[in-house]
Amino acid sequence: MLKFKELYKEFCGFLEKETFDFEPKELYEPVSYTLALGGKRIRPIMALLSCDFFGGDIKEAMNPAMGIEIFHNFTLLHDDIMDDAPIRRGKETVYKKWNSNIAILSGDTMFALAYKYITQTDSKYLKTILEVFNKTAIEVCEGQQYDMNYETEDNISISDYMKMIRLKTAVFLGAALKIGALIAETNRNNVDHIYCFGENLGMAFQLQDDYLDVFGNEAKFGKKTGGDIITNKKTFLYLKAFELARGEELKVLEENFIPNHPNNELKVEKIKEVYRKLKVDEYSAIEINRYYQKAMQHFEKIDCPDCDKVEMLNFAERLIKREY
Amino acid sequence: MLKFKELYKEFCGFLEKETFDFEPKELYEPVSYTLALGGKRIRPIMALLSCDFFGGDIKEAMNPAMGIEIFHNFTLLHDDIMDDAPIRRGKETVYKKWNSNIAILSGDTMFALAYKYITQTDSKYLKTILEVFNKTAIEVCEGQQYDMNYETEDNISISDYMKMIRLKTAVFLGAALKIGALIAETNRNNVDHIYCFGENLGMAFQLQDDYLDVFGNEAKFGKKTGGDIITNKKTFLYLKAFELARGEELKVLEENFIPNHPNNELKVEKIKEVYRKLKVDEYSAIEINRYYQKAMQHFEKIDCPDCDKVEMLNFAERLIKREY
Repeated sequence: MLKFKELYKEFCGFLEKETFDFEPKELYEPVSYTLALGGKRIRPIMALLSCDFFGGDIKEAMNPAMGIEIFHNFTLLHDDIMDDAPIRRGKETVYKKWNSNIAILSGDTMFALAYKYITQTDSKYLKTILEVFNKTAIEVCEGQQYDMNYETEDNISISDYMKMIRLKTAVFLGAALKIGALIAETNRNNVDHIYCFGENLGMAFQLQDDYLDVFGNEAKFGKKTGGDIITNKKTFLYLKAFELARGEELKVLEENFIPNHPNNELKVEKIKEVYRKLKVDEYSAIEINRYYQKAMQHFEKIDCPDCDKVEMLNFAERLIKREY
Repeated sequence: MLKFKELYKEFCGFLEKETFDFEPKELYEPVSYTLALGGKRIRPIMALLSCDFFGGDIKEAMNPAMGIEIFHNFTLLHDDIMDDAPIRRGKETVYKKWNSNIAILSGDTMFALAYKYITQTDSKYLKTILEVFNKTAIEVCEGQQYDMNYETEDNISISDYMKMIRLKTAVFLGAALKIGALIAETNRNNVDHIYCFGENLGMAFQLQDDYLDVFGNEAKFGKKTGGDIITNKKTFLYLKAFELARGEELKVLEENFIPNHPNNELKVEKIKEVYRKLKVDEYSAIEINRYYQKAMQHFEKIDCPDCDKVEMLNFAERLIKREY
């Protein structure tokens, strides 16, 4: 079985050869810019990994993998407008560098380009792949809407939050694996379990992301921690802290989780202190592990005696146990 | 062959049965609102008409036709944000009624929903249909980008303008007919000619739209004329007028085609007077007829002895010779 690094190299090679220097340049320059920003390319690699895992030919999965990566970047592009985010992967976001009209329309073009790549696959599984992809694309939009709703809504529960990250992040990881499995033409049982494996891994992945945003190693994480605290984002840590806090700790949370805090550094420090006191970091680790175990239960149900499970398990472990 | 009115009724019946009352409601209410705004439903009817014309079963074309209509409405939704347009079909636009984030994201959802409907078609022609649709979706984005570029660019030629309306409007009418023809499984020659028929008809349709915006019957047109003049839109009429105008007429154009004219009623009156003097209305009629004739040349090359051509020709004529 191919290793993650080999697949990463293969995919990046493919991506680099695909150029978008078409007219009008106002539309296509942001497409090239966005795709060149980098990122971990997790989703396309997952499609390739799954295809390879089930004995398929990764060449067959390359175009759909490209479609998956373009779609992911399209969602980031539009999310950045909605979230008013100036920086993405250390560079200006499209809507800051150009303007929001350009960001809307080049995003729309990327959406269409994603489908163009996904369509470039064998007719025999095209329809099934599209059904997965269409459903997932809609769910990702629903997840983003819940995320925006939660910004202004009070009384968000942990289960609301889990629903949101499932839609916004987890289902897409499941879908990437499922698409790879469909291209490899494995059986229905395996297709379903690899999806659930990916979905639960996706939950763990996002919870880990939230954890790292607060407690991550800044040097390794590549960005300053505390971003979610500064923006009062209702993550698992935030919601768990409010669930547990009483007396003085509740007061610190209430006094610091306010818009336009006069001292963000102090805010982050105080909130982190409360998080540690309440052990929400440990609760977070328990949740991450719970989803990781659920993922593993589905993985074990995959019926594929000839499959080399090592690389897939390595990948899953690296995804969750990463420190950045 | 089924008449336009029958197909319109069939399609509207189908559309009304498809409801979008899903969660989160912030995402789906704008979808239902947009689809209920009405409109002429020209594009889906063209797909059904073409399918029926070539002897196909319109039931097979209903889902793709729905996808076509949803996609068209998605483009309007996003265009309204970009154009800062407050009113669409006599009602508030989504971005005015809600906000631009809601409009971006419900638009994205409609894009995904469009593909969901288009995918609900027989596997045997799914790939071909998608190739047409993907290409067209990208072209429509390109057309919108040119349209935005032209707002601030000087020295736009009539041929630039024709390229823009071809991408933004005409190709989609061609694609709607082509998709219907593909579902009816007619031969390649017919598929290509019905596309070109639709594309040229689309050019005539847009030029007619521009003409009616200035010279249309306000009661029949359903909106006040002169909108394009007030916004200094570089339509065929505008560009032709600048091409022909000399001396006093050029002065009137230059003095009135300015941002924030103090008296829009007077502006429209003066520009219309120059347009009439320069006979740009007649030049416009010549162009419309030229594209109409090109459409007819392609129509004549359709090799289908058993096809009843009357209804298709009636439709084409009504599309172009309309007064509103």
